[in-house]
Amino acid sequence: MFQRHLETLPREIIEKVQLERLKRTIRRIKERNRIYWEKIGKVVPEDVKSLDDLKRLPFLTKDDLRKGYPFGFACGEQKDFVRFHMSSGTTGTPVVNPYTSADVDQWGEIMARCLAAAGLTFSDVLQITPSFGLFNGGFGFHYGAEKIGCFVVPIGPGRTLLQLKFFKDFNTTALAGIASYPLRIIEVAKEEGFDFSETSLKVGIFGAEVWSEEMRRYIEKEMGIEAFDIIGMTETGGVGLGIECNYHNGIHVWEDHYIVEIIDPETGYVLPDGEEGEMVVTTLTREGLPLIRYRTRDITRIVSRERCECGRTHLKVARIKGRTDDMLKVKGVCFYPRQVEEIVMKYPEILPDYQIIIGKVEGKDTIKLIIESEKQDEYLKERIEEEIYSTLGLHIKVTLKKKGEIPRAPGKAVRVKKEI
Amino acid sequence: MFQRHLETLPREIIEKVQLERLKRTIRRIKERNRIYWEKIGKVVPEDVKSLDDLKRLPFLTKDDLRKGYPFGFACGEQKDFVRFHMSSGTTGTPVVNPYTSADVDQWGEIMARCLAAAGLTFSDVLQITPSFGLFNGGFGFHYGAEKIGCFVVPIGPGRTLLQLKFFKDFNTTALAGIASYPLRIIEVAKEEGFDFSETSLKVGIFGAEVWSEEMRRYIEKEMGIEAFDIIGMTETGGVGLGIECNYHNGIHVWEDHYIVEIIDPETGYVLPDGEEGEMVVTTLTREGLPLIRYRTRDITRIVSRERCECGRTHLKVARIKGRTDDMLKVKGVCFYPRQVEEIVMKYPEILPDYQIIIGKVEGKDTIKLIIESEKQDEYLKERIEEEIYSTLGLHIKVTLKKKGEIPRAPGKAVRVKKEI
Ligand SMILES: [Zn+2]
Ligand SMILES: [Zn+2]
Repeated sequence: MFQRHLETLPREIIEKVQLERLKRTIRRIKERNRIYWEKIGKVVPEDVKSLDDLKRLPFLTKDDLRKGYPFGFACGEQKDFVRFHMSSGTTGTPVVNPYTSADVDQWGEIMARCLAAAGLTFSDVLQITPSFGLFNGGFGFHYGAEKIGCFVVPIGPGRTLLQLKFFKDFNTTALAGIASYPLRIIEVAKEEGFDFSETSLKVGIFGAEVWSEEMRRYIEKEMGIEAFDIIGMTETGGVGLGIECNYHNGIHVWEDHYIVEIIDPETGYVLPDGEEGEMVVTTLTREGLPLIRYRTRDITRIVSRERCECGRTHLKVARIKGRTDDMLKVKGVCFYPRQVEEIVMKYPEILPDYQIIIGKVEGKDTIKLIIESEKQDEYLKERIEEEIYSTLGLHIKVTLKKKGEIPRAPGKAVRVKKEI
Repeated sequence: MFQRHLETLPREIIEKVQLERLKRTIRRIKERNRIYWEKIGKVVPEDVKSLDDLKRLPFLTKDDLRKGYPFGFACGEQKDFVRFHMSSGTTGTPVVNPYTSADVDQWGEIMARCLAAAGLTFSDVLQITPSFGLFNGGFGFHYGAEKIGCFVVPIGPGRTLLQLKFFKDFNTTALAGIASYPLRIIEVAKEEGFDFSETSLKVGIFGAEVWSEEMRRYIEKEMGIEAFDIIGMTETGGVGLGIECNYHNGIHVWEDHYIVEIIDPETGYVLPDGEEGEMVVTTLTREGLPLIRYRTRDITRIVSRERCECGRTHLKVARIKGRTDDMLKVKGVCFYPRQVEEIVMKYPEILPDYQIIIGKVEGKDTIKLIIESEKQDEYLKERIEEEIYSTLGLHIKVTLKKKGEIPRAPGKAVRVKKEI
């Protein structure tokens, strides 16, 4: 662990700390951003007597933050900030998150905890493949690595042949990336006859996309590593909100820095532990863009608030199942792309890239699933169609393509295409 | 200034510090890298009685460093290092420079001095356009900005429309980039009718390429800024070896961190101050890759060792005229591309992108200069051909093209093409 005493605090202490910091966060908003303060109903710290009172505050949405571009919800003036990161903005106005130098430090601290949870120490070699820049991924790993003092290979995205070469040249032990990038690395390794068993790789830390258990098993088997799911987003202050420990039975969220609630996305009511819903995040230590009840649109549930076998006491959420805006509704059936991924990845003949194509013909929904396979087998196709039908209750037409025929996106993988 | 007492040390103190640190650097090599120590003739710190004794040590070349890929000249083991940066390797094996955490700190310090020399303080907004990753540019500005505490726009290269938008959205006051990038920004700004006078831009810091005074005047006039030339390379520990102060009469080299000598590239003899030759760099505070008499291949001269009008006492070299390997020899005439640039940029009708094309026809050298102009004027063409002939003694055929017809490279500009 990076901070044993903080990562193993008893629950009652965590909750005391949370209440204190929640009040401080509300005070900060009250003192520094009138519009934001009005948006949370002009609540004052004294109104918050217990954590339960959080439920009475309104939600903040991505649209709210977008409308505030760039500094509408910032607490402080630009001169108080030292940098910012930004959501990609491919689907509209981006969200800007401004950092004070204390925020940079907070980010380094939670990322160092994440790297330590994945087993990294100062003697590891971390190859950082998310991009450095406006996207938060690269710099998040950078700051965490600075704190634990490991050796960094600051390569960034792409140049997959060079990535393979560096695994050997620099004895890389840990790989950080967006979740679909290991697939590309594995694909190129196969083409090149690259043997992962000749490397020192032992750990992969992947996030920024929803990826299934089946995908995890494939990556772990092909690369000979242990893969960790990491969460976090621009709005929460970047990657590092939480990570799996080596028991892989949930993602620890750093509760001295964040409060998570799970709500029914329709009604907004907080759901009991174990029930699946939308994750809502409140930040407790962020200065530039503190969040009160931010709707992340990630679907998950609280797995446990008990002490984990790893010793950590911070609660665990399930791995993200999907995003509320990823949810597909076709012929009246609702499902997430990850559910389709889970089914097709069970078949060893099927390659990990896939694409779901949704359209409309004469007012009726159509859905196709394109997958890649080493062999073109009519029987295999039918088996997959049947299994999807028996699991999701949906008829999906499957098309088998040859390896490499599905276009690879340079950044995040494009799993769903809407042709409407 | 970032460190007034260090930047204004009297010369005799600078030289005392240099001697002490030179000995320490030699000791480090002796204790940590047997092969490197043999390469410098097994010199021991006690052999170095004065700075003059440096002249007796052998040179280190880029080829030496390349042959040592990745850690052949590193002083320490990989576990002692926290990161590395790397030359592009487009023309062969790259050079890897491994950093200890003290090296990262040293880099931040000299870059903070550079930013302060260009007038930046914590209240500035620095848009960093060199790429973050293996290339040292982005992270160099990043570390310097962290030390002075200014606001960083971590955008990296490309996305020029977004760069323009960010100038306004974030009130950017200073732009960092490789020297040809402002040309691209100006070009896109003209297409978009973007008005720089509506921005807060006041400073540009440009390096990594050789750029002329004429280019500087063009950039300053078009963008309404003051432009500073910054030097440094992967081998010396990245950008930040030196920068111009606001008197723009030479580049201050941080002499408590580096010793520079100017040598005759043919004979290797040290040249007197004022004479033009190849810059040789010895590092005094670098741990991972200390350099003893590294031949940079940059052509310059020592302008002054006196106290500058700015108050700094660290010596000044002239702006880089070219690289020994950039020097062109055509029809028996030796010249640098920058000399051609200086001539063509005098003509206001001529746009700043140009390309020199060198070939051979039936054993004879041919040379063409392609330039872009707003108007196709036969007389203008002849005038430029005549001026080049009278300056360089070389007949160069000039081709006038329309704006945008010379292909723009995504990274460093391609000014010379050899078609042989
Ligand atoms: Zn655990
Ligand atoms: Zn000066």
